Amino acid sequence: MEVDKKEEIASDSSEQVVNPWEVSAKDGGKIDYDKLIDQFGCQRLDESLIDRVERLTSRQPHVFLRRGVFFAHRDFDLVLDAYERGDKFYLYTGRGPSSEALHLGHLIPFMFTKYLQEAFKVPLVIQLTDDEKCMWKNLSVEESQRLARENAKDIIACGFDVTKTFIFSDFDYVGGAFYKNMVKVAKCVTLNKAMGIFGFSGEDHIGKLSFPPVQAVPSFPSSFPHLFPGKDKLRCLIPCAIDQDPYFRMTRDVAPRLGYSKPALIESSFFPALQASGENGKMSASDPNSAIYVTDTAKDIKNKINRYAFSGGQDSIEKHREIGANLEVDIPVKYLSFFLEDDAELEHIKKEYGEGRMLTGEVKKRLTEVLTGMVERHRMARAAVTEEMVDAFMAVRPLPNMFE
Amino acid sequence: MEVDKKEEIASDSSEQVVNPWEVSAKDGGKIDYDKLIDQFGCQRLDESLIDRVERLTSRQPHVFLRRGVFFAHRDFDLVLDAYERGDKFYLYTGRGPSSEALHLGHLIPFMFTKYLQEAFKVPLVIQLTDDEKCMWKNLSVEESQRLARENAKDIIACGFDVTKTFIFSDFDYVGGAFYKNMVKVAKCVTLNKAMGIFGFSGEDHIGKLSFPPVQAVPSFPSSFPHLFPGKDKLRCLIPCAIDQDPYFRMTRDVAPRLGYSKPALIESSFFPALQASGENGKMSASDPNSAIYVTDTAKDIKNKINRYAFSGGQDSIEKHREIGANLEVDIPVKYLSFFLEDDAELEHIKKEYGEGRMLTGEVKKRLTEVLTGMVERHRMARAAVTEEMVDAFMAVRPLPNMFE
Repeated sequence: MEVDKKEEIASDSSEQVVNPWEVSAKDGGKIDYDKLIDQFGCQRLDESLIDRVERLTSRQPHVFLRRGVFFAHRDFDLVLDAYERGDKFYLYTGRGPSSEALHLGHLIPFMFTKYLQEAFKVPLVIQLTDDEKCMWKNLSVEESQRLARENAKDIIACGFDVTKTFIFSDFDYVGGAFYKNMVKVAKCVTLNKAMGIFGFSGEDHIGKLSFPPVQAVPSFPSSFPHLFPGKDKLRCLIPCAIDQDPYFRMTRDVAPRLGYSKPALIESSFFPALQASGENGKMSASDPNSAIYVTDTAKDIKNKINRYAFSGGQDSIEKHREIGANLEVDIPVKYLSFFLEDDAELEHIKKEYGEGRMLTGEVKKRLTEVLTGMVERHRMARAAVTEEMVDAFMAVRPLPNMFE
Repeated sequence: MEVDKKEEIASDSSEQVVNPWEVSAKDGGKIDYDKLIDQFGCQRLDESLIDRVERLTSRQPHVFLRRGVFFAHRDFDLVLDAYERGDKFYLYTGRGPSSEALHLGHLIPFMFTKYLQEAFKVPLVIQLTDDEKCMWKNLSVEESQRLARENAKDIIACGFDVTKTFIFSDFDYVGGAFYKNMVKVAKCVTLNKAMGIFGFSGEDHIGKLSFPPVQAVPSFPSSFPHLFPGKDKLRCLIPCAIDQDPYFRMTRDVAPRLGYSKPALIESSFFPALQASGENGKMSASDPNSAIYVTDTAKDIKNKINRYAFSGGQDSIEKHREIGANLEVDIPVKYLSFFLEDDAELEHIKKEYGEGRMLTGEVKKRLTEVLTGMVERHRMARAAVTEEMVDAFMAVRPLPNMFE
C-alpha cells in the first residue's frame, strides 16, 4: 500500500498515467478525475450517498466527503445498504513504509479512516507493506521493518481506537491463513493479466509479481482468523487514494471465484505538492520543500508556505485587486480546502480572495495557522505513543469491542 | 519440490527437455545424462568422491552411490572438504504432496537422504510444498495440506531420526524469517530470468512466479531460526532428482548477493516406469499399472511385474538362450539395480540373464521378492507412525541432537 505516489510523478507525458507507482497528468496539466473514473470503471461519490452517510451516522460528514477529496467509490452504496439492514463491515487501509517522516498527504487516508471507524463503529486493519518497500525501494528487511514501526506511531497518533484496530507488518504477519489466501489469489491471476493491470515488464523482479496478492488478501476476513473467525462473509471497505485502484480491481475480479465478497472502495484524489500549479506536480522525496512534514517546526511551515506554495494571486496588488486570484491553481486555497474545518470561513476566503479583496499573504497566513496547529497536535499525540501502545495495536489477538 | 516428474512426461519431442514439470527424452528415446550435466553445468559424481564418502563415513557407500543412481553434483566436494575440517552441514530435501500414495520412485530421495543423515550425523529439513501442489494441480488448500500430512507419514516411515529432522508444510511454515528470505530472493530474480530458467509463459498464473523463492530459501540456515540460530554460514546439501536443478541454479546464483553460502547438490537420475523401454517412459498418475505403489499388495506387485514390466528378454526361449537379454532396456534388471542390496547377486543376475542362461521369469520372480519385502517393511513402518509422531517431526522447536 502506497499513498504518497506523488513522490514518483513522472514529468510531462502525452497521456495521463495513474497506477500505484506513477501518477502523471496529460502534458503536465491537471489529473482528469472524470476520465480516471471512466477508465477505471469506478463510480462518482455523489451528494445522495453523502447525505445517506450523514443520516446513517447521525453526524456531519467528514470534510473530505463534503469537499470531494474522497470522490469515487466501488460498491460503497452496497456497504451502506447492508449497514442499514444491520450488517456491519470492516475497514482496511495501509501504508508503504518508505520514509521516516510522513507529510500531510500521507495523513489524509488515516484521518478519513479514523472518522469512518468512529462514525460507523467498525473494526479496522492497517497493513504496513514493509515487504513491498524492501522490494521497490531497495531497503533492507531490517530498515523496512524499522520504518514500519516508526510509521505505525504516526498512524496511531491519528487517534485510532486500540480496541477496534489491528496494525500489522507484512514481514511479521504473512503466513498461515493470510498466506493461504495469497496462494488462492495468485492462482487466479495470469502473468499477462498482472502485466496488463500493473504495467510490469520482463526486467522487473519476480517479487513485484508476487506482491499484488499480499495487498489483495486483507480484503478477505478469513485472512484474520484471530479477528473474524466464522465471519467469512463480512464485507470490507477500503479507504485509499485512487492510484491503489488497480490492486483492488484485481482483488474484486478474483473474489467471487474464491467464494469471497468483493471489497468495496472509497477513493480519494491526490494531495498536491506545495509548488504545484493545479492538482498535479511533483512532491519529491528528495526535495523536502515540496511538502509539509509532520516533523516540521512552526518556522519550517511558515517558510515553506511563504516561499514555495504556488500562488494563484496576481503579480501586482493593482492587478490582484482588479481581477482577483485564480483559485484553480492556488495551493494555499487548495490546502485550506483539505484542512480548514469551517465551511463558512473557507467560502468566505475563496470569495474574498477570488475577487481580489484578500491578498495571497493573508491566505498564506491563515494556512500557516491551520497547519501549524494541526502539526503541533500531531507531534504531541505522537510523542504520547509508547512502545507498549505500538505492541498493543500490533498484537495478534481478538479485538474486544470490535462492533460496539 | 516434486520428485515424481515422470508423471508428466510429454510424449516424443525432438529435443530432450528436463525441468521440474517435464522430463522427456529426444525422440522418445533415453535421457542423455551426460548432455544434461553439460547443459545444466553440474559435475559428474566420480569414483574418487564416492571413495572419499566411504573414508569419511567409515561405512560402505549407499547402493544409490555405488550404482550411479545419484550421478551428478554441485560442490559436493566442497561440502566434504569442510566436513573433513570439522565443519558440519545440514540436509534439505522435499516433496510436492500431489497424491495419496507414493510409488517407489518417490522413496528414492528419502532412502538416500536417510543414509546421508545417518552416515554424516547431520540435521535435515524436509519441505512439503503443499502451496505448490495447490497451485499446479489445482488442489484445494485443505486437500493439499491433508496430502502433505499423509505423505509425511510415508516419509517418516523411511526411518528418519526425529531428534535431527524437521518436516514442514509451506502453508504452515511460510512467514517470519522464512518469508523475509523469500522476499530477499525474489528481489534478485527478474521476470525474464525466471521465464528463462523455468519456461513460464504469460498464460501461467503469478503463483508459479512466486513459488521459486519458496523452494529456494530452505537452502539458507537463517530460514530456520529455531534450528540454526547464529549459524548463518552453515552449508546446505540438497539430495534431489536432477529435474529440480533449475530451482537451485537460481538459488546458487542469488546466494552470494544475499551473503549466504551456495547450497551444494547431489542429484539422481529418474526412476523408470514399469512399461518403459530404457530409462524413459511415462509413469502416469492416471495409470496405476505404470508404477509400484507403497500401498500395493503382494498380489498387485506380482501382477504388475509379470504383466507390465518391460522385458529385455527375447521372444522365444531358443533365441533367448542364444543371444541373451538386452539389459539396457530391461526394467526388472533396472529395478533390481536400485533395490537389490547385494552387489554380487546383482552382478550374477546381469551376467546369467545377459548371456541367456537366466530367463525373464526368473528375474521377475526375484524382483517380486525384493519389492514385496521392501513394500511390506514400508507398510509396517508406516502403520507404526502415529499422529503424535507426525506432530513431533513437524513441531517448530530446537532439535536436541542435531550434530551428534
